[in-house]
Amino acid sequence: MAFSERIARLKSSLIREILAAAQRSEVMSFAGGLPAEPMLPKVDWAEMPASMGQYGMSEGEPALREAIAAEARALGVPCDASQVLIVSGSQQTLDLASKLFIDPGAEVLLEAPTYLAALQAFQLFGADCISVPQEADGPELAALRQRLENHKPAFAYLIPTFQNPSGTRYSEAKREAVAALLDEFGVTLIEDEPYRELVFDAGSATPIVSRLKQASWIYTGTVSKTLLPGLRVGYLIATKDLYPHLLRLKQSADLHTNRIGQWQALQWLGSEQYRGHLAELRDFYRIRRDAMQAALLEHFADLAEWEIPQGGLFFWLTLKQPLDTRTLLDAALAQNVAFMPGEPFFIDPDANPGHLRLNFSHVAPERLSEGLRRLATVIQEAQAK
Amino acid sequence: MAFSERIARLKSSLIREILAAAQRSEVMSFAGGLPAEPMLPKVDWAEMPASMGQYGMSEGEPALREAIAAEARALGVPCDASQVLIVSGSQQTLDLASKLFIDPGAEVLLEAPTYLAALQAFQLFGADCISVPQEADGPELAALRQRLENHKPAFAYLIPTFQNPSGTRYSEAKREAVAALLDEFGVTLIEDEPYRELVFDAGSATPIVSRLKQASWIYTGTVSKTLLPGLRVGYLIATKDLYPHLLRLKQSADLHTNRIGQWQALQWLGSEQYRGHLAELRDFYRIRRDAMQAALLEHFADLAEWEIPQGGLFFWLTLKQPLDTRTLLDAALAQNVAFMPGEPFFIDPDANPGHLRLNFSHVAPERLSEGLRRLATVIQEAQAK
Repeated sequence: MAFSERIARLKSSLIREILAAAQRSEVMSFAGGLPAEPMLPKVDWAEMPASMGQYGMSEGEPALREAIAAEARALGVPCDASQVLIVSGSQQTLDLASKLFIDPGAEVLLEAPTYLAALQAFQLFGADCISVPQEADGPELAALRQRLENHKPAFAYLIPTFQNPSGTRYSEAKREAVAALLDEFGVTLIEDEPYRELVFDAGSATPIVSRLKQASWIYTGTVSKTLLPGLRVGYLIATKDLYPHLLRLKQSADLHTNRIGQWQALQWLGSEQYRGHLAELRDFYRIRRDAMQAALLEHFADLAEWEIPQGGLFFWLTLKQPLDTRTLLDAALAQNVAFMPGEPFFIDPDANPGHLRLNFSHVAPERLSEGLRRLATVIQEAQAK
Repeated sequence: MAFSERIARLKSSLIREILAAAQRSEVMSFAGGLPAEPMLPKVDWAEMPASMGQYGMSEGEPALREAIAAEARALGVPCDASQVLIVSGSQQTLDLASKLFIDPGAEVLLEAPTYLAALQAFQLFGADCISVPQEADGPELAALRQRLENHKPAFAYLIPTFQNPSGTRYSEAKREAVAALLDEFGVTLIEDEPYRELVFDAGSATPIVSRLKQASWIYTGTVSKTLLPGLRVGYLIATKDLYPHLLRLKQSADLHTNRIGQWQALQWLGSEQYRGHLAELRDFYRIRRDAMQAALLEHFADLAEWEIPQGGLFFWLTLKQPLDTRTLLDAALAQNVAFMPGEPFFIDPDANPGHLRLNFSHVAPERLSEGLRRLATVIQEAQAK
């Protein structure tokens, strides 16, 4: 059997295996990034027209594209509906962008850490990934300039707003500086924003693409974190030099995104009902974030350091005594606790030990303290060895 | 802007442009492969559980995988649910299989003609396509053996049951012979069956994969032609050496197929209601097929030759005086008639002039004769030049 050479780069997904283990109901899982079940909104299908059952356009439903363009313009992103492509969840944007830009050996610029599934998608296509360290307010600018001077990345992939896994939100100053650097070096930006709406304070976060004057860009989002991930409806907005290619790649990938999910998303976007739902969602997650912070202070104050995330779904812990957190998984699962080791979020996992990504939206508050107590014990025992 | 080298192979889709032109309501379109609107079944969403809104498994819904495996076993395909992967429409199977097998220059064996969008997907990944001519009962066996002796294809892609575009259904003898040849040369088979259930006679068509003793295989189908294409729910069934790779490629492509469409498909598969719907569908399409045959005899008897399709959605015409049918499009559209030129269904379009693919499911019977009369006139005028 002769597979393509890319199959040698197709890694087993550690998170799949963890999530499979976390399915058992007795497991307290801090591993995934799932919306909380009680916060999935009740949706109504009664008014959906029968025509949504027919084949649709590869671009997506025209009314949905209009609604998404209007929301993006309100954020400052200069675009119209003709630049919007509806995708089968924003993971598909990573697949389409990989096809558009990545030949084996092509350089891609990422944050360190970065979103695991993006790293895997780019590496599957043979990307040579280079990274810029994150600080609390965004990337190290000197390092970014140095990378751009020494490399020719096909694109930079950034998650500036409540990054997965670090929870970082770039400051406005860093957004401005990053945009200026990408313009200066003419590097295309892919700005991934799944968590923008899950925000717990009044901080501002104008998209970086809205500040670009020359560089091409793809801005991508989803309804998975705010409405229903099971719909598999995301979108990308692209500059006009990129859009026609992305559209053809979409058509070749799966013809078009399912129309029933698109119709449902359209019922919500921009509506009063959606604004109310988002407000409830933020309150719910803020309370869980605060409960997690309290439990972390109780059990992890001596073990780790972390920032309090102002949005998104994750705490990102840095152990004071680093060790390879992948080696903790079996012991944690034996205690019915699941978490996500930090190493796979880096291009070079072995060089980046000692981080844990902990989801705060899933475990019920009454089990939180017990779950973190067990996890802290697993770490202490490993460090004592 | 440096795109990947595959973008140079990303062709403009002629059929997209034709379908866009055919949107105008005054156009009589024989171009597409759309189910007839009146035959889209009315579906009910009231009972769908809220959990379908949550993230799901990359493999697909367990109950749907069981139902599809049971149907496939009833056709003779040896499999269980663990070999079933739910995909975002069967076009996605072509994308996943391309990723699994195709490095630039990899050989792929196809029928001539073959499905346009498959050809485009394989070529996008850099396949070196080789083809076997079709006869009325399947591929020329001597040509197939010769290709297998002289080439090392990564896989053979075949559509043995009511092929798009030719309408051909392989005979049982050819199915047996093709399976024996693929086993002899150890070539993986991708068997694509979107049209199996749209059958107008009692002819048999046991899947080729059920006859393979050694070769690996992927069997792929969809609910798009029998239920609702807008759901974007298809499936593949693969031998156990291929399945784990296809699963990871699926996860990287779009995490999982939308669950609302999967739930709806599960309500129908194997049900009494579905059997009734399929019977109605076959009656409806058979009547349209017969009306098309009558109108073709009226207007095309002197111009072309064709077989009467025993299933599927298309007539495949061969002009007695071949000409490049792509050159007829503008004149036909000026007469408000759309059709699909045959050339793009071949690896070498310019060497294969003189075919037309005509859909019989879409144009209402009362407009059929006028549409075909206009198309015949366009052809006669071009031939007279």
